[in-house]
Amino acid sequence: MGGDFGPAPVIKGAIKATKKFKIPVTLVGDINQINKYLKKYRSQKNPLINIKHCNDYIKMEDSPVRAVRNKSDSSIIVSYNLIKDQICSSVVSTGNTGAVMVTGSLILKLMPGINRPAIATLIPKAGPFKHTVLLDSGANVDCRVEQLAQFALMGSAYAEIILDKKDPRVALLSNGSEESKGNDIIRAASTKLKSISNLNYVGFIEGKDIPQDKMDVIVCDGLIGNIVLKTMEGGVKLIFDSLKYLAKKTIRGKIGMLISKPVFKLLFKQKLDPASYGGAPLLGLNGISIVCHGSSNAKAVMNAIKLADRLASNNLEKKMLKSLSAEYNTFNTDLEDNVYNEFSSGFKKNKNKK
Amino acid sequence: MGGDFGPAPVIKGAIKATKKFKIPVTLVGDINQINKYLKKYRSQKNPLINIKHCNDYIKMEDSPVRAVRNKSDSSIIVSYNLIKDQICSSVVSTGNTGAVMVTGSLILKLMPGINRPAIATLIPKAGPFKHTVLLDSGANVDCRVEQLAQFALMGSAYAEIILDKKDPRVALLSNGSEESKGNDIIRAASTKLKSISNLNYVGFIEGKDIPQDKMDVIVCDGLIGNIVLKTMEGGVKLIFDSLKYLAKKTIRGKIGMLISKPVFKLLFKQKLDPASYGGAPLLGLNGISIVCHGSSNAKAVMNAIKLADRLASNNLEKKMLKSLSAEYNTFNTDLEDNVYNEFSSGFKKNKNKK
Repeated sequence: MGGDFGPAPVIKGAIKATKKFKIPVTLVGDINQINKYLKKYRSQKNPLINIKHCNDYIKMEDSPVRAVRNKSDSSIIVSYNLIKDQICSSVVSTGNTGAVMVTGSLILKLMPGINRPAIATLIPKAGPFKHTVLLDSGANVDCRVEQLAQFALMGSAYAEIILDKKDPRVALLSNGSEESKGNDIIRAASTKLKSISNLNYVGFIEGKDIPQDKMDVIVCDGLIGNIVLKTMEGGVKLIFDSLKYLAKKTIRGKIGMLISKPVFKLLFKQKLDPASYGGAPLLGLNGISIVCHGSSNAKAVMNAIKLADRLASNNLEKKMLKSLSAEYNTFNTDLEDNVYNEFSSGFKKNKNKK
Repeated sequence: MGGDFGPAPVIKGAIKATKKFKIPVTLVGDINQINKYLKKYRSQKNPLINIKHCNDYIKMEDSPVRAVRNKSDSSIIVSYNLIKDQICSSVVSTGNTGAVMVTGSLILKLMPGINRPAIATLIPKAGPFKHTVLLDSGANVDCRVEQLAQFALMGSAYAEIILDKKDPRVALLSNGSEESKGNDIIRAASTKLKSISNLNYVGFIEGKDIPQDKMDVIVCDGLIGNIVLKTMEGGVKLIFDSLKYLAKKTIRGKIGMLISKPVFKLLFKQKLDPASYGGAPLLGLNGISIVCHGSSNAKAVMNAIKLADRLASNNLEKKMLKSLSAEYNTFNTDLEDNVYNEFSSGFKKNKNKK
């Protein structure tokens, strides 16, 4: 209910997922609105679609913590309760990411050995290579050493499924490949990752290695992860905008670009279309949760549902628990009882500023 | 003497600078080697070239601090003494950046109100727009709030000259444009920058804004700056490698790319060729210092010399002192007496680890 474009792309995407992948979907939200769209898309009798009515939803501009307190009958809270009650296997949301994170952490609880959930994003590799998992891509601005280690273990388990690869190579993002690079936290995290025997840690990589086939998982804090993802986006736009501008200057340029158009289309489709990934899992909860961009289209929602189904049927949770189990007694998760406390204090801080 | 390819590209670049821009250059290094190359390039009688002989040079693999202590007759130390003695206006080096930074800080000393020097890199903007100044691009991994404020003031003075623009727009790099984004240091730096009246501070920008014309100067710590620059590089390579790979798959793709070749060449020349910038100034010293990539070619060296000359003749130092003067009593530069101390302790730490 709370995405940028309301329920339309979500319902359309869900219908696509039932038809294309035969995945059963429960739509959580206002039953009247849902029925309106199901009628519009001629899917009222789709046997794979269930509806779970609720009266409220969390808006993009709502404070996550306040919303979670006051909107218990909102679509995201009701959705997580469906996982908790083992009625559904996973949640897909295009709504307020902060609210998804806080609600998910409160209702499903964090896995043993996890301080904070992390968002794991797929980024394209150059040439014939497919993807790399980058985490955290924005959920946690400042991270301690053990959080980075948790990201490495969770990312490794996720990559095993999503990249279909045994023993994925895990790298730490730094400002150079030499051991002396990085700040104190990054260097200490490197020492920690070296000590974990069930992790295929390959050391530091630097920014220019990101699209190369040097690793399967990139670990960094959420501030850097967010900046990296958006800088990649910016770099791609730099090339396209500049090519467009320069090509217009000559007839040869215009013709060349016209003929090359299918190649660019293929590049966009294979490498750059965010809808082809659908969404990114919020790792670290006792349950599968996919966060989508607020402006996701139906294709993105469909692919996010496919991703959720794939992670559920490949036992992501069990794989993550196994990956974490050898290490979790070394992590001090008492530091933050739950994400709610931290969010709550963060919220108060911001409130006082105004 | 200490660049990746030895003195050849430096001498060739210096000759080009004397011919193309009539800039007098002093070559500092082993006189026999210098004469060998001057003879090879038929420039022994070039009236704009002087030679200052020295016996030693700092290698790429040398520890900066140890080298500075033990190699007093090295080319970089002798070069900085030529500025100190007012024989030359500026230093251009393709050598060990750490050594250039430590030596420069020791011999020229830091400007009043500066804790650490910063490297300011020019990055291309999309479409018809030219460049943005990004600093720090790698000299300082961890930065305090006042260092970020110093970067903003120094970057603003530099942008005024290099972008030929009054009152350049200064932005802080964060993980979103809202005031609540960033970590504690970034948010506190934003508050500080708002309070500086002679600074045109425009607030937070995010990664995808980097190639857009939203600002003239981007401020961040050196860890993030390094990661951003190399991620941009990686993003560009992602596009080119993938285009190359995809174009080969169809005849139309091959033909389209062949016809578009001049557009790509223009794109490289106008936007992406690092040699067109030449090098990046190390801001914050009492003197002008340009650091070049170790693998710089002659064109890069020529353009670095042109940059040094432009900054010297436009009084960069005076502009920076003026920019800093209104604020420097608010900066606590006692925290680090000089860059040497910090480097020295950093070096010891690394040594103990081994």
